[in-house]
Amino acid sequence: MELPVIQLGRRDPQPPLFDKIGIVGLGLIGGSIALAARQLWPSALVIAVDNKDVLETAMRLHAIDVAADDLIVLAEADLVVLAAPVKQNIALLAELDEHIRRPAVVTDTGSTKREIMAAARHLPPRFTFVGGHPLAGSARGGLEHARPDLFMGRPWLMTSTGERASAAAEKVSAFVRALGAQPRTIDAEAHDRLVAFLSHLPQLTASALMRVVGEAVGADGLTLAGRGLADTTRLASSPPEIWKDIAATNADELAAALEELIALLQELRADLRGGDRLAAVFEDARRWRELLTPAS
Amino acid sequence: MELPVIQLGRRDPQPPLFDKIGIVGLGLIGGSIALAARQLWPSALVIAVDNKDVLETAMRLHAIDVAADDLIVLAEADLVVLAAPVKQNIALLAELDEHIRRPAVVTDTGSTKREIMAAARHLPPRFTFVGGHPLAGSARGGLEHARPDLFMGRPWLMTSTGERASAAAEKVSAFVRALGAQPRTIDAEAHDRLVAFLSHLPQLTASALMRVVGEAVGADGLTLAGRGLADTTRLASSPPEIWKDIAATNADELAAALEELIALLQELRADLRGGDRLAAVFEDARRWRELLTPAS
Repeated sequence: MELPVIQLGRRDPQPPLFDKIGIVGLGLIGGSIALAARQLWPSALVIAVDNKDVLETAMRLHAIDVAADDLIVLAEADLVVLAAPVKQNIALLAELDEHIRRPAVVTDTGSTKREIMAAARHLPPRFTFVGGHPLAGSARGGLEHARPDLFMGRPWLMTSTGERASAAAEKVSAFVRALGAQPRTIDAEAHDRLVAFLSHLPQLTASALMRVVGEAVGADGLTLAGRGLADTTRLASSPPEIWKDIAATNADELAAALEELIALLQELRADLRGGDRLAAVFEDARRWRELLTPAS
Repeated sequence: MELPVIQLGRRDPQPPLFDKIGIVGLGLIGGSIALAARQLWPSALVIAVDNKDVLETAMRLHAIDVAADDLIVLAEADLVVLAAPVKQNIALLAELDEHIRRPAVVTDTGSTKREIMAAARHLPPRFTFVGGHPLAGSARGGLEHARPDLFMGRPWLMTSTGERASAAAEKVSAFVRALGAQPRTIDAEAHDRLVAFLSHLPQLTASALMRVVGEAVGADGLTLAGRGLADTTRLASSPPEIWKDIAATNADELAAALEELIALLQELRADLRGGDRLAAVFEDARRWRELLTPAS
């Protein structure tokens, strides 16, 4: 595996923003943060918590300095990045007090923000929580697809609350900017509604479509599929495990988004022979589609 | 515009299967057939019918030999390819008798097959109709995206009925094989059900999804969209005009496919907090998705 080098960090090395960076969960996102941090700040310690198999891979990739399957290894961390599935991140918040004795900035990379922001209000005062959500997924998850340049040019949504969080938010902003991302502040409610449409609805739609088509035409029929079906269902390769948490912690917004899609599909279904509604929807859709980045 | 050369045709030139190839409708498909036929059989005449603007472009691309905006130019054709939208193709069938005086093989490239096969039964006996459907679309239609290698390695579904059609079907098979496509015979009913799932349902879903997301998040929100939304909605760039005909001529099968998708989306909606159904659907979808060609 050849690792791209983040040019900016090499050309103009900066003192590390954090000395001991703890990362819990080394999937695509956590692993990519680890790889980038090691390249950017050779003097900082990257400490990882995950299960033993994942940590072995991470050591082999030189992604981390210290590894353990227990939070105790984070005792000295000044930044803790929770990069496990959303519900695990929320559960982990409650365990930090026991394991980390010094003040630390805590952030996460979860795809929903309201529940974890609410849970973070119960953290002891020596922790400052800043919510984070890098919009830099990939249809393929897991550490084996991690890359230090995963966040380059991508938005990184940040949610924080209260006066106390602002200095910490500045530091986390600088951290994600160093990874190549573009931090944007948004409140947790607006975030969850936005990603329900931009990310969660497309994901559920792609998976539902793939299942319906697969069951209807079978493996033989799929040999006749073209690029259209392949594009539309590419997200159906996403790992199921993270999506259960995302759906559960954004159920209301995602239900509302699903209802809008279902209602429109029902309208189209009622107009197949006439086609005027269909033509209007296609025309609208084409105009919206043109606003997506040309590169995509 | 650089035109790829079909290597097989160049290396081993064959006598033309048809001497005068008439093509009605020079969009992506008709235009690509014209370009390929000109390369493969320099001695055959490629005669095109479309409106004047399109024909000017076609002449500029050296895609055709003879052009007119009237079917009269097809009088001597021994192959007529109807490559207009489905309902126009059906209407054109009724006009052939008036304009073409000699026996001819007639085929089409439409995305639905039951209606045109039924209409073709009323053709005078000097015409033999073989239904055709090249599975070689692109998210971008129109002559400007036509290429002679569009059909290379792609399936070309063929429907024909009756004894009389079999010799013509053989010849059309050889014709599409020369274009690089892989002919497959299928009956019209099975065809229309198959493409309802493989092609029409993904198209309607992509357009509906894009419209719902665009309306919900607006142009600003779309700047935060990632590759997932871009992939899932790529088909929403398809030209609306051809889809009205496709939906109308496959309304029953497409309605059934839409109902299956809507039912599954409703199941997912009811299970967002629990997530067991969601996890099962995601798992199924991931397995089906793996059966799509690795290249896609």
